[in-house]
Amino acid sequence: MEIGRTSSETAGKVIRCKAAICRNPGDPLVIEEIQVDPPKAWEVRIKIICTSLCHTDVTFWKLNTGPIAVFPRIFGHEAVGVVESVGKHVEEVEEGDKVVPVFLPNCKECRDCQSTKSNACSVFNKKLAIDMPRDGTSRFRDMNGEVLHHFLYVSSFSEFTVVDVAHVVRISPQVPVDKACLLSCGISTGIGAAWKVAEVEEGSTVAIFGLGSVGLAVAEGAKLRGASKIIGIDLNPEKFEIAKEFGVTDFVNPATIGEKPVSETIRDLTDGGADYCFECIGLASLMQEAFNSCREGWGKTVILGVEMLGTPLTLKSFDILRGRTVTGSLFGGLKPKTDIPLLVTKYLNKELNLDSFISHKVSFKEINKAFDLLLQGKSLRCIIWMDE
Amino acid sequence: MEIGRTSSETAGKVIRCKAAICRNPGDPLVIEEIQVDPPKAWEVRIKIICTSLCHTDVTFWKLNTGPIAVFPRIFGHEAVGVVESVGKHVEEVEEGDKVVPVFLPNCKECRDCQSTKSNACSVFNKKLAIDMPRDGTSRFRDMNGEVLHHFLYVSSFSEFTVVDVAHVVRISPQVPVDKACLLSCGISTGIGAAWKVAEVEEGSTVAIFGLGSVGLAVAEGAKLRGASKIIGIDLNPEKFEIAKEFGVTDFVNPATIGEKPVSETIRDLTDGGADYCFECIGLASLMQEAFNSCREGWGKTVILGVEMLGTPLTLKSFDILRGRTVTGSLFGGLKPKTDIPLLVTKYLNKELNLDSFISHKVSFKEINKAFDLLLQGKSLRCIIWMDE
Repeated sequence: MEIGRTSSETAGKVIRCKAAICRNPGDPLVIEEIQVDPPKAWEVRIKIICTSLCHTDVTFWKLNTGPIAVFPRIFGHEAVGVVESVGKHVEEVEEGDKVVPVFLPNCKECRDCQSTKSNACSVFNKKLAIDMPRDGTSRFRDMNGEVLHHFLYVSSFSEFTVVDVAHVVRISPQVPVDKACLLSCGISTGIGAAWKVAEVEEGSTVAIFGLGSVGLAVAEGAKLRGASKIIGIDLNPEKFEIAKEFGVTDFVNPATIGEKPVSETIRDLTDGGADYCFECIGLASLMQEAFNSCREGWGKTVILGVEMLGTPLTLKSFDILRGRTVTGSLFGGLKPKTDIPLLVTKYLNKELNLDSFISHKVSFKEINKAFDLLLQGKSLRCIIWMDE
Repeated sequence: MEIGRTSSETAGKVIRCKAAICRNPGDPLVIEEIQVDPPKAWEVRIKIICTSLCHTDVTFWKLNTGPIAVFPRIFGHEAVGVVESVGKHVEEVEEGDKVVPVFLPNCKECRDCQSTKSNACSVFNKKLAIDMPRDGTSRFRDMNGEVLHHFLYVSSFSEFTVVDVAHVVRISPQVPVDKACLLSCGISTGIGAAWKVAEVEEGSTVAIFGLGSVGLAVAEGAKLRGASKIIGIDLNPEKFEIAKEFGVTDFVNPATIGEKPVSETIRDLTDGGADYCFECIGLASLMQEAFNSCREGWGKTVILGVEMLGTPLTLKSFDILRGRTVTGSLFGGLKPKTDIPLLVTKYLNKELNLDSFISHKVSFKEINKAFDLLLQGKSLRCIIWMDE
């Protein structure tokens, strides 16, 4: 790390640094020099230490239609960094703080942030901006002065980024940065879904649709809560070995069970249906299958996957009348500013397995390799180190 | 009441008595003499004291297609009676006990009955029988020997009926029978939905779609829990005056708000959406409107209405991801055998208003008048007295 760049020498000035730019949907990222503006009021400029690739990056990288498919863009929304400088009014963090930027805002003052029941900050989510959440403008330009767009209020595929303070969480300097990076999105989402949204309890049965990192984090959360049976559903049989490490006890491959619907298989395995079902892919058809796999009486289906095609979830009202519940959450129902530090503490106390989620690491210049690994289903989380 | 008929004189024998028979869908009921078999093992024969008419009776009375549209049939599933005799193995009630028959079974032994989270008895609900739940046969015949079908395991539009002991709840002899009759279905459903399914809390906002007795019972439950705003939605403006008595504070008539969707009106009235929405009609389109009226972050939509057309509820997954929940229940999530006696106690302690639900009373021979009043939207509950 170049210490000079995090000192007050750069504060207030435009920083030139390297970023991985995507100029067209689906094109490999290209590392270019870019200009990063200083933070405005309530904003924080962060030097990224490491970042990782999440399926949502890939989804938006491929997306070629609609108002949210904007290019050129700097992707990346799971990361850890160090505060380089802060804008006016920022008191929560200061230069040198180790921070996790998070896509989900947490203003700490609105009715939602103050309630224990919600993590859907209602100040910042009223209008979804493409770039900075307060004024809607970008802090990135290429060397020709063309605006580069932000992604999910983070844009961590850059040596420096600017993030609104509502999206910044200070973390303990003790925690290894690659582990903390995982808490920035996917792993927190899965653990939170099991602990806070479903409230999985000892002895319960769980079915997880999709054994990517989010699904495995659900398994980890369910295992730590003492679930007696954790069924993983995935088309990739290679997932099962690694899944065992996170507590998955049974595996269902929809490709090898013949005509029988997955939900029927799950009901057979759980004496009538799982207590908790989690959809971690983002397919309406799987959401329905998850719902059908849930036990009558108290079965709860938690939707975590983002359905990008807009296909609705269709429920027969008769099926819901016998005590089933469908619910959804972003970021596992967790509040970034209070819950990420709690997860960090649990990791430091060895109560949480984060290490096994890191399957690969690459240097920043090899960032496209991280895309290949994820697209081929070979990686869980690939840590991208900015300085290597 | 003819005491002789409830004594052991009739035990074990076929009883001849009057019942209101429906021979064809939608036809007025005809009071005929019928034969009622003695109770088999685990069955209870009950002399009905009074009964009331619920929308579900009307729905099935009109239903003219499908495997559950069977005739001739004896409708009625809200009632209070006295045990005339019991079959083998019945120890829970005895001759002379005042009882409420309930459509929802409660075996007290299955995993659901033993759990605090469910009221969906899993022994009896595995197969839905038209007639008696254990052997699927009827205990009713007309004077020509033709089988008359049961309805919802109760069939209270008869001077005598036979009900499985899993569907029988003994109540305090102190409670006025017409009030207890209300707890047999609709009113318990509404109160339970507010208390047990939604868990409405002090200061919360509530929207109720449909101000029939079930909707008004939701209002009553929400009021007793201290809800700060209770919005009633109904096409019948006459409902508003009576609704006030049950705690409804605001009224929305979809017919008079122009192009604006009801959900937008509710969101305006509640600063972004109601905390709890209840669908008490059974229309998929209203279920969706209720869901859309619910607050992001923690809004919960409770489905109480039975959608008879099979139209599914269609949810955009994006809309559920920000912390909304959809759930459903029968009988308001209450367990008949434990919760009806608790509601009776609350009534006797003057903690619960039941009296205002009784808008009309008729004699058994005027039973078709009860149908007219309900169809015209003029009655809440009309008590039908068997001996008048």
